[in-house]
Amino acid sequence: MTNTIRIIGIDPGLRRTGWGIIETLGNCLRFVASGTVTSDGDMDLASRLCQLHDGLAEVVHAYQPDEAAVEQTFVNKDAVATLKLGQARGVVMLVPARAGLRVSEYAPNAVKKAVIGVGHGEKQQIHMMLKILMPKATFVGNDAADALAIAICHAHNRGGDRMRKVLATA
Amino acid sequence: MTNTIRIIGIDPGLRRTGWGIIETLGNCLRFVASGTVTSDGDMDLASRLCQLHDGLAEVVHAYQPDEAAVEQTFVNKDAVATLKLGQARGVVMLVPARAGLRVSEYAPNAVKKAVIGVGHGEKQQIHMMLKILMPKATFVGNDAADALAIAICHAHNRGGDRMRKVLATA
Repeated sequence: MTNTIRIIGIDPGLRRTGWGIIETLGNCLRFVASGTVTSDGDMDLASRLCQLHDGLAEVVHAYQPDEAAVEQTFVNKDAVATLKLGQARGVVMLVPARAGLRVSEYAPNAVKKAVIGVGHGEKQQIHMMLKILMPKATFVGNDAADALAIAICHAHNRGGDRMRKVLATA
Repeated sequence: MTNTIRIIGIDPGLRRTGWGIIETLGNCLRFVASGTVTSDGDMDLASRLCQLHDGLAEVVHAYQPDEAAVEQTFVNKDAVATLKLGQARGVVMLVPARAGLRVSEYAPNAVKKAVIGVGHGEKQQIHMMLKILMPKATFVGNDAADALAIAICHAHNRGGDRMRKVLATA
């Protein structure tokens, strides 16, 4: 017998943090919910980090996931952007960790590989595959879609080979 | 009549986050406490961010500061280090903000200027000036000393010209 595991995938960003919740039971993936937590660009940094924290804490409290997954941040040459993203990412990882969840990290190409079979591809292709893998999935915008892809990547990797079959034959 | 304002200065870092608490009353600066919150380098990132959060939340709870100040991060060319610091900084700013404190940010040269009169100088000079400004101050290591300097910088800047005089004549 296998148990249903509820996973939250999170795509961190200071302005918009996407989240997606799925369940995995044996070979099945089930969409639960998705959305975006935003912060107000007119407010100071500390207040914006609070907004992200509170919004995401509400989601974790409402949906009670068992495990969390976050995309490893793409470090680019824009140091200011990297710092900004890092600050959001710190808060975003803190929320599930404080709720007692294990937080796994996945490289962007691992996330893409989990949903479209290869490590590179367009956003549109990810959206299409999400609909194939979970026909009932609804998501608005790239951040929520990416978060769902991260959750699927974790479902794929957390249980060894079990999920790979589903994804390979989807 | 002026009120005593208790300030926490914080110098963020993933491995070591320094903190220093001072009080400012009229033209006086008073040392309250200082220390360092550390995270375990052998643990995963989410757990380390939790350690920083919990350690700093304990300090804020114990000393009940009124205002917080954090140094603006020096963004360098090492993007991985910038990201790491950003993650710690996000959590470090979140803690006082969630406690309802206003969190001010100061550039590194403003902090140096507040304690040694110019925007550049050695760590040793900062340590010496801290002892002159607050003879009862105790601090172990650069992180706690820097945090005290940040708190002094905020005392200096929060009330307009009031504190400048103290610092100029110290």
